[in-house]
Amino acid sequence: MARLLLAKEVNGELCSALLTRCALLKERGVFPCLATVRVGFSEADVSYERSINKRCENIGIKVKNIVLEERTPTEKVIQEIVNLNMDDEVHGILLFKPLPPQIDERRVSDIIDASKDVDAAGRITAANPYLGRNDGFAPCTAEAVMQILRHYAVRLEGSHAVVLGRSDVIGKPLSMMLLSENATVTICHSKTANLPEICRQADIIIAAVGVPKMLTQEYFSPGQVVIDVGIHVEEDGSMCGDVDFAAADPIVAAITPVPGGVGAVTTTMLAQAVITAASRLTE
Amino acid sequence: MARLLLAKEVNGELCSALLTRCALLKERGVFPCLATVRVGFSEADVSYERSINKRCENIGIKVKNIVLEERTPTEKVIQEIVNLNMDDEVHGILLFKPLPPQIDERRVSDIIDASKDVDAAGRITAANPYLGRNDGFAPCTAEAVMQILRHYAVRLEGSHAVVLGRSDVIGKPLSMMLLSENATVTICHSKTANLPEICRQADIIIAAVGVPKMLTQEYFSPGQVVIDVGIHVEEDGSMCGDVDFAAADPIVAAITPVPGGVGAVTTTMLAQAVITAASRLTE
Repeated sequence: MARLLLAKEVNGELCSALLTRCALLKERGVFPCLATVRVGFSEADVSYERSINKRCENIGIKVKNIVLEERTPTEKVIQEIVNLNMDDEVHGILLFKPLPPQIDERRVSDIIDASKDVDAAGRITAANPYLGRNDGFAPCTAEAVMQILRHYAVRLEGSHAVVLGRSDVIGKPLSMMLLSENATVTICHSKTANLPEICRQADIIIAAVGVPKMLTQEYFSPGQVVIDVGIHVEEDGSMCGDVDFAAADPIVAAITPVPGGVGAVTTTMLAQAVITAASRLTE
Repeated sequence: MARLLLAKEVNGELCSALLTRCALLKERGVFPCLATVRVGFSEADVSYERSINKRCENIGIKVKNIVLEERTPTEKVIQEIVNLNMDDEVHGILLFKPLPPQIDERRVSDIIDASKDVDAAGRITAANPYLGRNDGFAPCTAEAVMQILRHYAVRLEGSHAVVLGRSDVIGKPLSMMLLSENATVTICHSKTANLPEICRQADIIIAAVGVPKMLTQEYFSPGQVVIDVGIHVEEDGSMCGDVDFAAADPIVAAITPVPGGVGAVTTTMLAQAVITAASRLTE
């Protein structure tokens, strides 16, 4: 049985530190506030929004949930974001993605003010992990993975990390973060040949493919640390990740469960970025 | 014996196409011009400058070689670049790096006007390969490697490319370019464990470590394509790369020689970027 890498253990100290930082800001009249922008009613977005609201409430961050109808045109979304950019009471802006197909996601993302871009949606901020800059904002899910590895003191230097997935929000930024911690990084994707074989050679596997239970027994070998970024709802209503947990658990050394793993740390990283943004914007 | 991947073969068509583009620009009164900025007299810089001058001359590009003394302060270098940014007769700016230690290389690089940043020295342009943008400018050496692979129709999709080195000018951008061509990419560096073993598994090896003849027999296996980015001058005055050519040649399928490989394509990529810049700036 693998050791479980649990969000509640990672979040414990972090959340109480954020609670304190938030209270200190309030003492000087700053009320940290996140605005979320959702277009449409996708189940994944609504569920993530609910988790964000809960985490922020617990820490003392105010949240404004802006919800636009499914068919909203690009210009209207941009106008909402411009308003949030100008609103001094809003310190962070999070846009749920992917946006519906009629919307120019790139333009909308790039319009978010860099000082409020807490999930690194805009190009300038998104390039931070590649350029080796740390201005406090990076994609929250990638940050969450790094936070879990740090919390459990997983050795990164000289380790071989295999990242499955090359998205702008997880695979690519995470690869750069692992590289800057001196891991050897292999970036895999849908065109990769011999994926199970490559995975078996890894010290650390990061699964961010978006396919339920894709990583079966043949992907794993003893001693590995497995981080499962996937979040899927099965037909019976239960949740699962990109990893077939039952298959990996008897083989590997440590693994994040779904739920209770990466997802629940992601909201904490988001809260942390909002508090950082609020501190800076009101300095 | 491996097939030689030769700059002269890659450059042939490319250079004649550039010659034509250059002549057409001149017909409409535009004289493509590159400014190089060198601080000090390092042998590598002087040699690269000479190669640039020769390539540009052959294609019809004018070159201004600006040479500043070794101890030039940051502000003075910045002033030179600001002048070049404003000079309408200059279309491309190339800065020789690394700069001497007293100079703030980051600040100096970022001051180069993005429309003239033909070697992607500034942050905004440097992030292009990561962000999947192609505005025509990327680090010239990384572009040269891609050009060689394209010329010889080396299969990238689904291939495993191992990149040795993670510099901002070669390792990192090249990894992103290979990834965008659907290769599986492993990024290795000085902290990587079992480097020879990892290399033996590759379909394509890119050596950009900066250590003469570091890659010996144990790094190679049959069928591989080897691209050697290193350029070193040995004690007897002969040149070599990061690969021990004599050791690799009997094993692998194809290899770039040094000299006559990557370096000689890099200057062509630079010339191409200058012509692109000249076209755009005078549209």
